[in-house]
Amino acid sequence: MSYTNFPSKLLENAVAEFSKLPGIGRKTALRLVLHLLNQPKEDVNLFGSSIIQLRNEIKHCNSCFNISDTSLCDICANPKRDHETICVVESIRDVMSIERTQQFNGIYHVLGGIISPMDGIGPSDLKIEPLIQKVSEGKAKEIILALSTTMEGDTTNFYLYKKLNKFKVPITTIARGVSIGDELEYTDEITLGRSILHRTLFDQNLQ
Amino acid sequence: MSYTNFPSKLLENAVAEFSKLPGIGRKTALRLVLHLLNQPKEDVNLFGSSIIQLRNEIKHCNSCFNISDTSLCDICANPKRDHETICVVESIRDVMSIERTQQFNGIYHVLGGIISPMDGIGPSDLKIEPLIQKVSEGKAKEIILALSTTMEGDTTNFYLYKKLNKFKVPITTIARGVSIGDELEYTDEITLGRSILHRTLFDQNLQ
Repeated sequence: MSYTNFPSKLLENAVAEFSKLPGIGRKTALRLVLHLLNQPKEDVNLFGSSIIQLRNEIKHCNSCFNISDTSLCDICANPKRDHETICVVESIRDVMSIERTQQFNGIYHVLGGIISPMDGIGPSDLKIEPLIQKVSEGKAKEIILALSTTMEGDTTNFYLYKKLNKFKVPITTIARGVSIGDELEYTDEITLGRSILHRTLFDQNLQ
Repeated sequence: MSYTNFPSKLLENAVAEFSKLPGIGRKTALRLVLHLLNQPKEDVNLFGSSIIQLRNEIKHCNSCFNISDTSLCDICANPKRDHETICVVESIRDVMSIERTQQFNGIYHVLGGIISPMDGIGPSDLKIEPLIQKVSEGKAKEIILALSTTMEGDTTNFYLYKKLNKFKVPITTIARGVSIGDELEYTDEITLGRSILHRTLFDQNLQ
């Protein structure tokens, strides 16, 4: 065993696989792999197969492209939800975040990313066409753009706005402002500036 | 989809499995799982099977209990190493750390843990008997105890000392002292005290 090598090829493989994950270096990978080595065989087999199964059998909702075990996701299949208010998000994680707020009763449209020329992601790599299709069929009465406030998010917002504007459906974006619990002193200028420009009536907050 | 649930059972399973790993909460688990979902199927299958294969096929060296793909590990099988100097360590990670220093040419004995009554780990759970066996057969001319400087490490050191002392083989421990690069001001009292008691001749460091 040379001083950079692992004593076992199997161990080395597993560590190499783990260190491909984002935010996991070789040291953490080794710690996780050695932890798994100490677990019962059945547990480790379950761990490995849950991932393989997920990747091979996962489906996406035919309508909103959220992850789903069925061809129509639970949200799109729910008749109690407002199917004419479509919230456009980047990923399934954003769907989960918004669902957790319990403040939204419309449906979603998951783009699967945002336009990012630096990463080689253009409009055709995202689920933008199906959204335009849906809106052109008169299926929406409001489109909420809920993308990140980054350069890429703004670019995507603007692209979507240009594509969707002609359908005469209101296009809104989620409010930007000072986070609840934040002190004004530590809020960045742009956010604070926007929160003054887009001030709301005080009694709107009383409910 | 309720606001605490995942939109897919497969996704939920995979996230649950990931969050069993030490230091990985549900948020990180979700991030890792969604990352895997974006990777090619073959890569994810490779990831899952590398772990399953590791757990099912891993072997331990018959002599030192280090992880190995063969019945005798590369270190124990190496005739150029000093087979009479045995360094006792807690885990395979410590073997790798010491090997990286390139300062040790003996062989190892991996205990597979340390005595920790709090975690229900007693001497019989560790590979202590095979070590005593090896020493009693006169196979060692020095035993180096390289365990952690914790309560459990000290307990294990003392237990091993009591068991091995009768064989009249020198038992040493690795030097404890101020880390190289550390400032005295920030060194804890016990370490600093020991480093004064166990001071070494200055010319020992000149080489």
